[in-house]
Amino acid sequence: MKSYRKELSFNIPSRRGFVNITPEVESALQESGIREGFVLVNAMHITASVFINDDEHGLHQDYDKWLERLAPHEPVDQYRHNDTGEDNADAHMKRQIMGREVMLAVTQGNLDFGPWEQIFYGEFDGRRRKRVLIKIIGE
Amino acid sequence: MKSYRKELSFNIPSRRGFVNITPEVESALQESGIREGFVLVNAMHITASVFINDDEHGLHQDYDKWLERLAPHEPVDQYRHNDTGEDNADAHMKRQIMGREVMLAVTQGNLDFGPWEQIFYGEFDGRRRKRVLIKIIGE
Amino acid sequence: MKSYRKELSFNIPSRRGFVNITPEVESALQESGIREGFVLVNAMHITASVFINDDEHGLHQDYDKWLERLAPHEPVDQYRHNDTGEDNADAHMKRQIMGREVMLAVTQGNLDFGPWEQIFYGEFDGRRRKRVLIKIIGE
Repeated sequence: MKSYRKELSFNIPSRRGFVNITPEVESALQESGIREGFVLVNAMHITASVFINDDEHGLHQDYDKWLERLAPHEPVDQYRHNDTGEDNADAHMKRQIMGREVMLAVTQGNLDFGPWEQIFYGEFDGRRRKRVLIKIIGE
Repeated sequence: MKSYRKELSFNIPSRRGFVNITPEVESALQESGIREGFVLVNAMHITASVFINDDEHGLHQDYDKWLERLAPHEPVDQYRHNDTGEDNADAHMKRQIMGREVMLAVTQGNLDFGPWEQIFYGEFDGRRRKRVLIKIIGE
Repeated sequence: MKSYRKELSFNIPSRRGFVNITPEVESALQESGIREGFVLVNAMHITASVFINDDEHGLHQDYDKWLERLAPHEPVDQYRHNDTGEDNADAHMKRQIMGREVMLAVTQGNLDFGPWEQIFYGEFDGRRRKRVLIKIIGE
């Protein structure tokens, strides 16, 4: 059994944003030399997500608007978490809807993906450095 | 370490529907010969889900109504994704709530399940062929 | 390849509650002797969640209020699942938002976590005994 570990790092200049990290995950898989196994990709922070969906700009606008409707940022004093001095309670909720992590199959040395699957980092409380963990186990 | 891969394929005749795929996942596990490990079951399409919940018809009606309330299909022009000519932006949202994938433990050659756990394929943009990936790693 | 399995058991005295299970998962990892691999932690019941977020009391109050807004418990007769004699349809929905499971990387014998990641059991239909599965695979 082989294992491989890599971190990605982000500093999104706005509060919220989506970044396609599929090429970085593919590179990590090639570096690992693993041909059959699993890849875990997870946000290391609790106000961010890793998820799989479409790389389409209109959809990302829709996600942003929809998440704001389900868990609005303002007014910040609607959330007890923000009594601690934070203003990011909404980001902890948005991350639950979009998810912390994805698991990917590795088959014959490649990410075993359907036709439109792309991996995204979803930031809900940006403007500081945050990290994603890639861990690969297999043979 | 052993690995096993299988695809399931679906063509749901309506826009939305739920299919219990537990027997197919159990068959794949038996075919694999793996006795200790993990099973990944994921939708290969980004307007569909794989999730674990109850095989109860009333609950599935509730899910359908609830997902329509949280991410309505109509009016389709409320979504920028649909400016591309698609009408399935809502399906990309429903899939985020229900999830892309499940990971299952394999113990002594069986799916290691609680009393009511059943695996479902959730379709949110049907009427065409779509696939699910089963990948099993272990010994 | 090594594997290790452990169950945790809960009896939350109220309908809903959150319990930090990070120490129990860390203990299971030490018991396993596994140094590189993956840990799966999943609810064995379909009205409960395992998720990773912040151990902050105000945030847990916010989650409870938010989940009640997205999937209210009352009136119970709004859900067809409750026609079966149950009153927990809302719990099946809350669990989908918060998730069934988490996958954790194991690196050099430790949970490979970001600075604030903590693992929680989320109960949405308590007052009876329920279980969580920990399964660890690696070397």
